[in-house]
Order: sequence, then structure tokens, then C-alpha cells
Amino acid sequence: MKLENLLKEAAKIKGQSVAVASAEDEEVIEAVAEAIHRDLAQFMLFGQKDAIELLLDKKGIGKERVQIIHAWSQQQAAELAVRSVHQNEASVLMKGHIPTSSLLKAVLNKEYGLRTGRVLSHVAAFDIPGFSKALIVTDAAMNIEPDIQQKEQIIVNAVNVARSIGVSFPKVAAIAAVEVINPSMKATLDAAALTMMNKRGQIQNCIVDGPLALDNAVSILAAQHKGITSEVAGQADILFVPTIEVGNVLYKSLIYFANAKVGAVIAGAKAPIVLTSRSDSSESKLYSLALALCSSDK
Amino acid sequence: MKLENLLKEAAKIKGQSVAVASAEDEEVIEAVAEAIHRDLAQFMLFGQKDAIELLLDKKGIGKERVQIIHAWSQQQAAELAVRSVHQNEASVLMKGHIPTSSLLKAVLNKEYGLRTGRVLSHVAAFDIPGFSKALIVTDAAMNIEPDIQQKEQIIVNAVNVARSIGVSFPKVAAIAAVEVINPSMKATLDAAALTMMNKRGQIQNCIVDGPLALDNAVSILAAQHKGITSEVAGQADILFVPTIEVGNVLYKSLIYFANAKVGAVIAGAKAPIVLTSRSDSSESKLYSLALALCSSDK
Repeated sequence: MKLENLLKEAAKIKGQSVAVASAEDEEVIEAVAEAIHRDLAQFMLFGQKDAIELLLDKKGIGKERVQIIHAWSQQQAAELAVRSVHQNEASVLMKGHIPTSSLLKAVLNKEYGLRTGRVLSHVAAFDIPGFSKALIVTDAAMNIEPDIQQKEQIIVNAVNVARSIGVSFPKVAAIAAVEVINPSMKATLDAAALTMMNKRGQIQNCIVDGPLALDNAVSILAAQHKGITSEVAGQADILFVPTIEVGNVLYKSLIYFANAKVGAVIAGAKAPIVLTSRSDSSESKLYSLALALCSSDK
Repeated sequence: MKLENLLKEAAKIKGQSVAVASAEDEEVIEAVAEAIHRDLAQFMLFGQKDAIELLLDKKGIGKERVQIIHAWSQQQAAELAVRSVHQNEASVLMKGHIPTSSLLKAVLNKEYGLRTGRVLSHVAAFDIPGFSKALIVTDAAMNIEPDIQQKEQIIVNAVNVARSIGVSFPKVAAIAAVEVINPSMKATLDAAALTMMNKRGQIQNCIVDGPLALDNAVSILAAQHKGITSEVAGQADILFVPTIEVGNVLYKSLIYFANAKVGAVIAGAKAPIVLTSRSDSSESKLYSLALALCSSDK
């Protein structure tokens, strides 16, 4: 599925609520306004009531579409927003005007948080000009240098997101710089282990193959040229990268050099988390919300 | 400078010779033919004489433009080609129909090789649609996980190449996933050290700044948005990446997603080495040759 279709798909799922932690921020309210305009979801806005109301008035959003819950501080807003998801009042958590670390602290709280025992990971879906389907990249922002166990969970998180947007049995390329196993290159050893974990049923609902360099993961011609026989080569749905630097550079290369569009969520918690940042375009914020709404269990 | 101008610049430098190791290969001879057609250089073709002559005839290249030196084996072709550069008969070494490892073995030979005591590294220059200047990426193919000393040399090699194509005082962005120093992220620590090595005069003829994430290295808007003050941010000429996986993914993302054009050399030896592979376009092979001819000392 392409991201542009995701907005329609998300709008079809009725009755979902998004809990926004510290909603007193113009850009966040702008994204909320656009989402309401497209009938994507209901919103629970946690934060400074007066400031939020002022921004809603400015954007011309009727208060019947949102619920405002006052909080005295960012920390309290985070706690209340997370609690609302914990108690199934909302099915998506969205970051407002609060540092990511403060929000994640609330998410990881043992009493009211959203822990599942799984690794939290960043899953980004891209529409790339010239590509007929969305490509998922993971992990570009959360896990620095994951070990094999964490890598397995990062893949499972991405597979779950892919399945939620209609890729029922995603092809996962475990990316490295080369296709052969080189003991000096940890990425190739880990990719081989992950491929075998998939073959042995330890990673399910997908096909994992690696190590694959990026060209052989996404270009059938490149893979044929290199004589690579693989069900994944040239047709990857998910690009699993070995370290945060690889993911981050790929993410930003797609945005800044290839004019790709992106939506991203943090997966692995009880509910998807939207961590849009100030530099994201309003389109990207909408795509992230749509991705979160589609990948929510509720 | 853009790569398209590089061909003209290379043609202006007269009297250079390229030594091709194992030239008995149709695609290699095609690149040689195109280079001769554009009057880039003279060629010394080492390898199986009969096979090379047959291919030259096929391409309609007069034998006055090339010198053929027979070799009985790939290893001998590599040795003779490398010796010719060692003895200053040629100023660029080019890989033909021979494994990269065999050619590099000859390059590193203590008696007749091209060692300088410096690290050999891969330097790639890209023309990216929408970008007004060539961007250099290093190292996408040679050094797996360089230490600080190797990183310093990789930067110096790239700076030398940049200067040879007209960027007299290149801006080097030491790439990481974030802009802040995070002790859990080695790339940020190394980037900080390299930045200070530059400030202390240990890396010269350039400005190094890092850690910078890719967006802040190449987009002034992104850097301003993030409040980053730096002479390099948004204006990088050289993207120095921390590991081979980062470089390789960036390289291939530029080619496959951003439709960039590329030329690449191995720098750090006595003479630049062109290691084109079968999957490179003929345009890319020419750009690599031009980059090598420009960055040769001779």
C-alpha cells in the first residue's frame, strides 16, 4: 500500500481515539485539526486547558470533536495521556510539546505504562517516487546497536506494522554492505542468524533474507546482475538495518535526496506511539497518525 | 564542481596514462573506448594480448591510442600494471577482469606496490538531482569499522580528492544519527574527536564538524530549524560516515532512490585506483576515470 491510501484506510477504522500528551503547541494542534478534518479519529488533548482552547479556537476546531483534560505540567500530561491508553480509552499515544525522553519515561512506567516486555522500535514507511509500494525502514531512531534478540523483536514490530497496512507476509531484507558472510562484519553475521531464525520458525509471518546490500534488496535487476537467488532480493517490503546510523542516514537520504514521503511510529508498546518532531512536514505528521491508527490493535 | 564538468577538466590534463590490469573484458574495453573517444588519457592494457586485440577491433579502436602488454595470468597482469604505476609510466591504475582482492594484493606488494603508509579508502562523488554541487561520500566500500586514526586518514584522502576537483577548502560533515555527544553512540564520540583534531591542526585543508545527522549536514533549513551553528551544517562537501554499512547504504540509496550519478576512486595509494564493477553504468565508469585522472598527482 502507498502512504496516500493509508489516510483513507485509517479513516475507515471508526471509533479510535488519540491521546495527545502536552497538546499546547501550535504545530501539534494543526496536525490534530487536519486529522479531524479528514475524520481520522477523536482526540483527547492533555495539557494546559486555556492554551489548548485558544489554539483550537484559532484553528476553528469545534470542541465537540475533542476532549480536553487539564494537566498542571508536562509530566502530568504525559502520565494522564499514557494512563488513558493503558485503560483503553485511547488507542494511539501522540507526543505534543514535551521532550521524547519524558514521554517515554511515562510509557515505560511499571504501574500505568504501556510496556509489553518487547523492545520499542521505530518503524518508518516511505513513499518513494518511482516505487510502486511503500518501503518500511527500521530502526532509524530508537535502538542504537541492537543485539540479535533485540533485532528479532525490531523485525517482528515492523512485520506487525506492515501487516496492519495490508502487506500480509512481508519480505524482510537484513541489510549489510555485502551479500556474503564476512566474520569481520557483524551486520553480515547477524543477518545470517536472523535469516535462519526465520527459517526455523523463530521469526514468523514474514520471509527474512540477508545479508543483502541495499541495491540487491530493492532492485531485481541488481540482484540478477549479481546472481542472487532469493525470495526477498529486489522485492523487499521491509529494510532492516543493523545500526541506528544506517537507519538514520537511509531515512534522511530518502527525505532529502529522493523526495520521499514518510510516516513513522514507535511500535512494540501496548499501543502505537506517534513521535512527530517540529521539522516533520504536516503531511508527514498526518501519515504518522494514519500509520498509528492502522497499526493499533483496537 | 558537478561530475559532468569533471570529464572536461580531466580532458584538459594532458599526457596521463591509465594502466588497466586484465583488460580482456568487453565492458572494460568499452569504457576505455569511450575515454579515448573523449581524449581523456592514453591506456596501457595489461592482459591476454589476442583477446584484448579482438575486443579493440570490435570497438574500432586504433592501436595507436593504446599500448598492449601481454600477461600470462591475471596475477601477472596485476603485477605488471601496478609496476607501471610504481615506475611512473602510468598515473592511474584501473581494475579489469580480475578480482578486487587480487589487484589490491599487488597494490600492497612491498617491492613494486603502491603503498604510501596511508590507509586506502573509497571516495565517491555524486551528482544528485536538485543539488548544485557534487557531494563526496566516504567510505562506502573499503574500511569496515575504522578507528580514529583510520578515520582521520579517510578524511584526508577525501579532502585530497575534493581539492583535486576544485573544492579548495572542503567542508566535512562527520555523520552520526544525532547532533549531540552520546557516550552510547561511538559515531558521536569519534565525530567530536575528529572535529577537535581539525581544530588543533591535526587534520588540515578543510573544516570538519560533527556529529551531524545527514539532514543537518546537507540542508541549511534543517540545520536552522534545529538551531545548529556550524560552518559545515547545510553546506557539507564531504559526508564522512562512521562505518561501511552507513556508507554503502547511502551510496546505494543515492543511486537507486535519488537517481544520482557517481564516480569513485580508491585513494591513499601512490596513484588513484579505479575499481569499477560490472553493475556500474558506463557513465559511472567514465566519471570514475575522470575523478582518478583529476586526483592523480601527475
